[in-house]
Amino acid sequence: MARPSPLSGFPEWLPGERIVEQHVLDTLRRVYELHGFASLETRAVEPMDQLLRKGEIDKEVYVLRRLHAEEGDAGQSPGLGLHFDLTVPFARYVLERAGHLEFPFRRYQIQKVWRGERPQDGRYREFLQADIDIVDRDALAFHHEVDLPLVVLEAFAALPLPLMTMRVNNRKLAEGFYRAVGADDPSLVLRAIDKLDKIGPVKVRPLLADAGLSAAGAQACLDLASISSPDASFADRVRALGVTDPLLDTGLEELVRVLDAAAERAPGRLVADLKIARGLDYYTGTVYETFMAGHEDLGSVCSGGRYDALASDGKASYPGVGVSIGVSRILGRLFKAGALTASRSVPTTVLVAVDDEESRGSSNAVAAALRGRGIPTEVAPSAAKFGKQIRHADRRGIPWVWFPGDSTVKDLRTGDQVAADPADWTPPEADLRPDILSPQTEETHT
Amino acid sequence: MARPSPLSGFPEWLPGERIVEQHVLDTLRRVYELHGFASLETRAVEPMDQLLRKGEIDKEVYVLRRLHAEEGDAGQSPGLGLHFDLTVPFARYVLERAGHLEFPFRRYQIQKVWRGERPQDGRYREFLQADIDIVDRDALAFHHEVDLPLVVLEAFAALPLPLMTMRVNNRKLAEGFYRAVGADDPSLVLRAIDKLDKIGPVKVRPLLADAGLSAAGAQACLDLASISSPDASFADRVRALGVTDPLLDTGLEELVRVLDAAAERAPGRLVADLKIARGLDYYTGTVYETFMAGHEDLGSVCSGGRYDALASDGKASYPGVGVSIGVSRILGRLFKAGALTASRSVPTTVLVAVDDEESRGSSNAVAAALRGRGIPTEVAPSAAKFGKQIRHADRRGIPWVWFPGDSTVKDLRTGDQVAADPADWTPPEADLRPDILSPQTEETHT
Repeated sequence: MARPSPLSGFPEWLPGERIVEQHVLDTLRRVYELHGFASLETRAVEPMDQLLRKGEIDKEVYVLRRLHAEEGDAGQSPGLGLHFDLTVPFARYVLERAGHLEFPFRRYQIQKVWRGERPQDGRYREFLQADIDIVDRDALAFHHEVDLPLVVLEAFAALPLPLMTMRVNNRKLAEGFYRAVGADDPSLVLRAIDKLDKIGPVKVRPLLADAGLSAAGAQACLDLASISSPDASFADRVRALGVTDPLLDTGLEELVRVLDAAAERAPGRLVADLKIARGLDYYTGTVYETFMAGHEDLGSVCSGGRYDALASDGKASYPGVGVSIGVSRILGRLFKAGALTASRSVPTTVLVAVDDEESRGSSNAVAAALRGRGIPTEVAPSAAKFGKQIRHADRRGIPWVWFPGDSTVKDLRTGDQVAADPADWTPPEADLRPDILSPQTEETHT
Repeated sequence: MARPSPLSGFPEWLPGERIVEQHVLDTLRRVYELHGFASLETRAVEPMDQLLRKGEIDKEVYVLRRLHAEEGDAGQSPGLGLHFDLTVPFARYVLERAGHLEFPFRRYQIQKVWRGERPQDGRYREFLQADIDIVDRDALAFHHEVDLPLVVLEAFAALPLPLMTMRVNNRKLAEGFYRAVGADDPSLVLRAIDKLDKIGPVKVRPLLADAGLSAAGAQACLDLASISSPDASFADRVRALGVTDPLLDTGLEELVRVLDAAAERAPGRLVADLKIARGLDYYTGTVYETFMAGHEDLGSVCSGGRYDALASDGKASYPGVGVSIGVSRILGRLFKAGALTASRSVPTTVLVAVDDEESRGSSNAVAAALRGRGIPTEVAPSAAKFGKQIRHADRRGIPWVWFPGDSTVKDLRTGDQVAADPADWTPPEADLRPDILSPQTEETHT
């Protein structure tokens, strides 16, 4: 068999990169669980009618077919496709299991998703997303819209990633404002404003006219979109535009509460930005986008918002708030830039050398003693010359080599070799796991 | 939207079950990493020609198609299917990345796999497998066949599962013996012996005749298959059959080494069983199957063996040894039997009550102080009556409720309520994570 080539759009990490990814996922999990979010995994497949329910056929679903499907099978069961996000499966899970869940239900979900899009920089066909949502039955208290982004910012602060800035807007604020300046269908205005960064105000203006706005109304919307601030001062600038509307007022008040809480609990990391639109129709309150310092061209790497009806079964509806982190998109970019590496390609802290095959048992005994005290240890695969055994450790970045013959342990970084007893020798705490290094990143949180 | 129904064959756990699954996966990871195995994930898809390479079309592959595939797309790129195990993707990964890997390469891999089989008890269409393998380039030292099962048995010993017994055989032993008693194609004998448990010796005998064996030769093979022992004493019983062959001798010696090591390092958990055949052709040395006490009808829940050529690119071949644990199969059975549960459905240790919405900030401050010291904490979603807030905790199994008003904390299990300072109150260590309970299992390891 010839050497296979990578499949474009289906990233796979090397062992050292996987160690970085594990560290990122462990950190997300630790912070989310500290806040009481439960882990959830859903199956990878959904019925096609579910996947296409919101008319999102632009998502390029992968459809499944059994290789040996019996004749007539296709007609019997609904077709299945791979999920393209974690929101559709979560909504379906909540409806299906509502009777077994306690509401408000707080969950995080870290899984692969698939989209048959043409692969390009930062766009994969298979990628890892980390979602976090709070859903309630019938009504969801507003404070969750304040709390949720702070949980995510706490997670980012614990990660060795470039600085993340969350940009926040409020759909009530936008909708109230757009209606007050003459828009009959605020979603048309929203979609035009969403294009502002890509095509600029000159090309957005005619789209606003198409949405039924006068020149003055369009200008007011562009003025609103130009407002941003890292604190609640944006509210005065909005009021200075002289537009009044009760929904606008509610949205303003909500956004101020988000900004005030963030100023206290995550200073500088959350910014009000009134041009943030989020393409999707189902958001109804606060909306979030997040940009990574030095990699703003990637677009938002962590987005979401408040929705009033994630799902409804006729009897109850399930409003919620959530965001999704594009883990593969972030890591793929940083790996490619050499900006995020692990100090070793294995979890191993100590390699125990083997004098000769007859004494492999003694080496195994040393390793067992070290493992018994939580020190990741492997035994050299062959009783080669010690120089070769040391190179085995060195090539993997294993920091320590143990020699059972004279019961010494050598630090490969300093060359120091000291007598040691496997029953009580302990390496520095930091050596128990690989270091995560972000050499090219100046502004990290750790 | 009506309430959706589960999809047969695609299991999904409730939050409490997921907590059990996380504990199982965390334990596997901890033990595997203590032994220096690196984590690996491969993409979910492989080219169809890879998946069908070994003629394993009985595996019922799920084939993918893009919903919006362009005309002619199918001809351009190879078709893709979902992997049905983790061995085929691992072999492909090793070949593809050989230049970036250090050999021997020790990895574990925990991922979903898919098979379009008709769902039945213990057979899923989507399920989680946990694989562990050691592969080397060109030659793999025998001691790995001794070491690998002991790592897996160490992991099982740390899990709250019914007692696991690994049953082991050796292909050299079997092949040498079968040839010596007259079989030209030992794989035919192997396949017949593999059916022994299902159809019994009376029906196996004609299959052995079909494989070219005389009545005496067939009897010898059935005699061999009847031998099992939890120590190296099986070797004398094999020798007593009076068959001599150099390959048989090598296999006997190897199997004795596996049994001797297990008697010392995992007493009673590994048994020589000379009817263990493993269906697959590619095994060439030690083969492993594992049965769960009280659930032997599930079949083997952890199987594998030594293979000489997992993959080959013409220049190098990659021999290895590995086993795969059927995580979903084990958990699905135990969940259904109510034999494995978590003490709560959330990671939360403390619920902080809210006196009234105006003082939510004080509750948040208490929660932040507790989280800062690693105590999973959530804040009550509403300032309902305390009785209702306590029920909120109780229904989720959260053991502690904090009342910021008078700064007390209540243990819901005993009803005791004491004054406490969020800056230094600490719950018992065991309360920091949910307990895993196996009420109906008498023989567990923990």
